[in-house]
Amino acid sequence: MRTIEETILIEATPLHQTREVRVGIVGYGTVGRATAEILALNAEEIQRRTDGVSIRVTRLCRKGARSSEAGVNGIAVVPNWEQVVNADDVDIVVEAIGGTGVAYQVIRASIEKGKAVVTANKALIAQFGEELFALADQKKLPIGIEASVGGGVPVIRAISEALAADRVQAVYGIVNGTANFILTEMENHGVEFGEALRQAQEAGYAEADPSLDIDGFDARDKIAILARLAFHGALSPADIRVTGIRQVSATDFHYAQRLNSTIRLVASAERNAQGINISVGPWLVRRDSMLAKVDGPNNAIFLVGEKVGTQMFYGRGAGGNATGTAVLSDVVQIAKHVAREQTMPNMLSGFHSTEKLALSERIHPVQWYLRLTVADRPGILARVAEAIAHEGINIDSVVQEPYTSKERLSFVVTLEPVGEPTVNRAVQAINQFNFMLEPVLLLPMISAAGE
Amino acid sequence: MRTIEETILIEATPLHQTREVRVGIVGYGTVGRATAEILALNAEEIQRRTDGVSIRVTRLCRKGARSSEAGVNGIAVVPNWEQVVNADDVDIVVEAIGGTGVAYQVIRASIEKGKAVVTANKALIAQFGEELFALADQKKLPIGIEASVGGGVPVIRAISEALAADRVQAVYGIVNGTANFILTEMENHGVEFGEALRQAQEAGYAEADPSLDIDGFDARDKIAILARLAFHGALSPADIRVTGIRQVSATDFHYAQRLNSTIRLVASAERNAQGINISVGPWLVRRDSMLAKVDGPNNAIFLVGEKVGTQMFYGRGAGGNATGTAVLSDVVQIAKHVAREQTMPNMLSGFHSTEKLALSERIHPVQWYLRLTVADRPGILARVAEAIAHEGINIDSVVQEPYTSKERLSFVVTLEPVGEPTVNRAVQAINQFNFMLEPVLLLPMISAAGE
Repeated sequence: MRTIEETILIEATPLHQTREVRVGIVGYGTVGRATAEILALNAEEIQRRTDGVSIRVTRLCRKGARSSEAGVNGIAVVPNWEQVVNADDVDIVVEAIGGTGVAYQVIRASIEKGKAVVTANKALIAQFGEELFALADQKKLPIGIEASVGGGVPVIRAISEALAADRVQAVYGIVNGTANFILTEMENHGVEFGEALRQAQEAGYAEADPSLDIDGFDARDKIAILARLAFHGALSPADIRVTGIRQVSATDFHYAQRLNSTIRLVASAERNAQGINISVGPWLVRRDSMLAKVDGPNNAIFLVGEKVGTQMFYGRGAGGNATGTAVLSDVVQIAKHVAREQTMPNMLSGFHSTEKLALSERIHPVQWYLRLTVADRPGILARVAEAIAHEGINIDSVVQEPYTSKERLSFVVTLEPVGEPTVNRAVQAINQFNFMLEPVLLLPMISAAGE
Repeated sequence: MRTIEETILIEATPLHQTREVRVGIVGYGTVGRATAEILALNAEEIQRRTDGVSIRVTRLCRKGARSSEAGVNGIAVVPNWEQVVNADDVDIVVEAIGGTGVAYQVIRASIEKGKAVVTANKALIAQFGEELFALADQKKLPIGIEASVGGGVPVIRAISEALAADRVQAVYGIVNGTANFILTEMENHGVEFGEALRQAQEAGYAEADPSLDIDGFDARDKIAILARLAFHGALSPADIRVTGIRQVSATDFHYAQRLNSTIRLVASAERNAQGINISVGPWLVRRDSMLAKVDGPNNAIFLVGEKVGTQMFYGRGAGGNATGTAVLSDVVQIAKHVAREQTMPNMLSGFHSTEKLALSERIHPVQWYLRLTVADRPGILARVAEAIAHEGINIDSVVQEPYTSKERLSFVVTLEPVGEPTVNRAVQAINQFNFMLEPVLLLPMISAAGE
């Protein structure tokens, strides 16, 4: 609590003031460095645009930094994050380490020290957001998370500010650029998954250990954050069903093309009569859909509001410059309040609810794509058709490319619209057949939420 | 200036407070009514999300309202706007009249009375924004203009907050849903402009006097607002070159299709070496471009940032519900500050610059589409080709549909990339020829800014 004298001083602060706001960056890799460099490059322009708020990097930290290391503006890069978080000349801490270990400590300690925080860390916010926002709320401090989903695409602002007076029905889209790059390569060049992954690694889009991206866990953390903001309830990322793209093959893109479609990894959260259906997995999308148009490492997030209708936000989902711009959008907004010694109204109320969201399966009937890989022999189609009919499902089409071999034959069955629990029972039955060489690849045929 | 006692009281206000924020709506047509109804419908949900900020409509005004007229929540609808603006129980005035007459008076009077303002009025903000923001700044009051461009699409936030630390290179897109609906009808059904306009009027997308939409003036006001926010300089909408879509014919869509393209009305502001090139006019865009995918009454705005790269924002550009949601996004953000008796940091600094933007022609070379309509006779193509060669321009292709008549023959010439001043000289020369039945239709062949 401020004294009366201090309060009077603050009240008298003119609008056009020049109080400097000081930023400490913990983690000086791709994102941390880009953030520092863009800020240094555009500091004067930002000051002009904000009526005099001067924002300056004062502290940098990188694990293992040598004693002589210097970063942007010649600032010493120190190896211990405590030297940034505890520094008197830091108002805002940018956490750019990633992961849920040290990053967690950095954010907690920063808030406890009375510093605002900005982070691009989706894993941390998805898992510990509720706790961290509760702590920040106690201290009346903001946490900026614009960069945690969609890279430079301002989807956090869109969902929490632009739709502040609407009710979200669905949020879904392509939120992992690495997986999208791989699927686009497979689509355009007919290559297998392994080859496309190698290309993504060579192009710098995929890590040496690509599991977080291709197995869908990165997308899961992002949709967990979007769902919290959209539906104002609590959820654990571990409760979200996740299917990656390892099982998608060049053959699937052949069949997709015959069905006038392509394949995209989609993270989706949608309200239905029983609750919220949240999932990450590959979808078969029509080639003329907006989802199909998103290629390479780009992201596209769709928001469906009861009143506002369907919106789409598209742009670069990763990379230092895009992510750094998003980090700085939060830094500038917070700095405007810091400079005037104002607390900032909380814009991310979705993280304040402790009531768990009711999760639901995809009960809305949709069409389905089943790709079966079998050792060919007479009667296979009859047995598959019988298993499908047993659940009361109608087959829409059976497609088989002529070039497949008898020893390892792939064919596709598409189904008329039916709910997910029903199709899952049919797939479980089919997977029991001893002619099946690998489990059925099951993809919903959806090009937009609710279709 | 508050007394010390009052200040202490404010300091002691807890974060979870329940101060009511009261909204007066002036103009109770499509937008005003939708705004009031969405707020009434979602008031409790908004209160929950904002930790207790209760927002309520208290006053409604409609010109010519009868004495017994009641609006949302049974509130009397009064005919005089002064009764709203002067009311003690109004904190935020929503101006939903439109136009630059009474609306101007309403906004000025509201600010002078110490009330925050939210408006969807692009014409007013494009023309008088600088003056109104200067007045609001003096009084430390916010003006919310999210709904003025893009309907429900939050492009104002994207440009002014998300890109707060970046430099915009270009902002362009489809910002008039009526014109886009007409062009989409012409593309899909091969109808002439007049027929498509009638369909737009029947569908409720076009006014009885459609000039503002089809002659490009609505798009001009919107790009004027976007350019101010993007480039942080002053400009007058009257200085922007505007071409509408009246001259675009069914024949042009035939030729566009042969060129694997379609036609869209694009508003564009782009930085080049000489200044900012701002224009509104039809573009010939490739069918596989994102611009071509925007159909019907939708809007799509592209932002190109130096660091963030290209982004696209898509959604419903008009209609009461989409626009009302955008109005309320500003109302909620302002209400959070009003409830805590905080002044709100200005987010729209682009309107504070009084230095004029240097405007430039399109100097970057692009391809061009010229459609000529002539009375056929020998030697026409030779004379046209000569006029083009005289400016040192290379012809890329000449396309002529076989079905056109000799009395009124249309053909198309496409040019290799050349700057706008040069192509304009060639077109002026061609327009002098006495075989020309109407002026050349000149379209840039661009599918994205800078291409």
